[in-house]
Amino acid sequence: MRKGEATRTAILDRGARLAAQIGLEGLTIGRLAADLGLSKSGLFAHFHSKEALQIQVLDAAAERFVEEVVRAAVRQPRGEPRMVALYDRWLDWAKSNSGPGGCLFVAAAAELDDRPGPVRDRLVALQKGWLEMIAIVYRTGVTERHFREDLDPEQFAHDLYSVMLGFHHASRLLRDPRAEERAHVAFERLLASVRRERRTAKA
Amino acid sequence: MRKGEATRTAILDRGARLAAQIGLEGLTIGRLAADLGLSKSGLFAHFHSKEALQIQVLDAAAERFVEEVVRAAVRQPRGEPRMVALYDRWLDWAKSNSGPGGCLFVAAAAELDDRPGPVRDRLVALQKGWLEMIAIVYRTGVTERHFREDLDPEQFAHDLYSVMLGFHHASRLLRDPRAEERAHVAFERLLASVRRERRTAKA
Repeated sequence: MRKGEATRTAILDRGARLAAQIGLEGLTIGRLAADLGLSKSGLFAHFHSKEALQIQVLDAAAERFVEEVVRAAVRQPRGEPRMVALYDRWLDWAKSNSGPGGCLFVAAAAELDDRPGPVRDRLVALQKGWLEMIAIVYRTGVTERHFREDLDPEQFAHDLYSVMLGFHHASRLLRDPRAEERAHVAFERLLASVRRERRTAKA
Repeated sequence: MRKGEATRTAILDRGARLAAQIGLEGLTIGRLAADLGLSKSGLFAHFHSKEALQIQVLDAAAERFVEEVVRAAVRQPRGEPRMVALYDRWLDWAKSNSGPGGCLFVAAAAELDDRPGPVRDRLVALQKGWLEMIAIVYRTGVTERHFREDLDPEQFAHDLYSVMLGFHHASRLLRDPRAEERAHVAFERLLASVRRERRTAKA
């Protein structure tokens, strides 16, 4: 049982890396079987269809994201420290997935944006869940009186996501050596614009 | 001569739309010929290789971008009005390319980020040129005393690009009905952070 679970995790992890590289659409059971040196029929018995494989690969990557980014962040105190941890861990995630293909979610977003179907639906649900998570952490910052309560937490989530997309673009496509520094500046400006103290000082 | 040029433009325009949809890598001379109902040999005589076709499609899209976004913006007064026009036209571009595939440059960025070669090199050169253009417009805002001179124009360009990537993600993948409004809020906050008057008022 435990061994089966470990095998499944290893297969899906390899699937995620392959999908980031060749595209989720290219991730077929046959291609993944060849890549892993497993039999196609064995893998088919596990996943039944290409679509089911793609969805499980997305789910497995999301689980790893929650493990590496969210769990680590929620150990920090509510409000700004937790938001900073979320950003730091997310950037670590983006950097650790800097091999061929990069972050599966960013790659899949561009690939699937106009390919309707259950795989796209799952990706959208996962991304919305992540934006909601950021908005929730923002709200803990309001109750802790770190962040302004007159601002829209969903806007903050959108803006933080934009910072990360900008980092991805600058580091992966442009190979800008200052990509990380630019992301920090952008994140700091975003934080400064929502901090409560700043507002109070101006009033 | 003039007719040949018009045909070439029409072919490259169709190529750009197809590439945004199926990926630049999928854009072969054969595929484009089939799509246009032209002979493969005729198209081959025009473009000679798949790579040359891909590069010319990128160049043609960049020319159209300059025509629709940059030329219109530089008609506005230097500084903030020109930057606002640049943003408005860029958003119009993103919206008018909202059919299958969306903006070729955003689609190609995710596709080519780890595919070394002349096509990727051209895409990077075009993107860097565009970021430089934004930085130049920022500098006109410094000389006009609209924008702060102690800030990095390249950082502004990076941040404005991030706003647009966030819009693209929210509108195309998430189909967020508030995507445009969120982009406006992000752009306004970015402008507010660089305006000279604001700095003076705080000093």
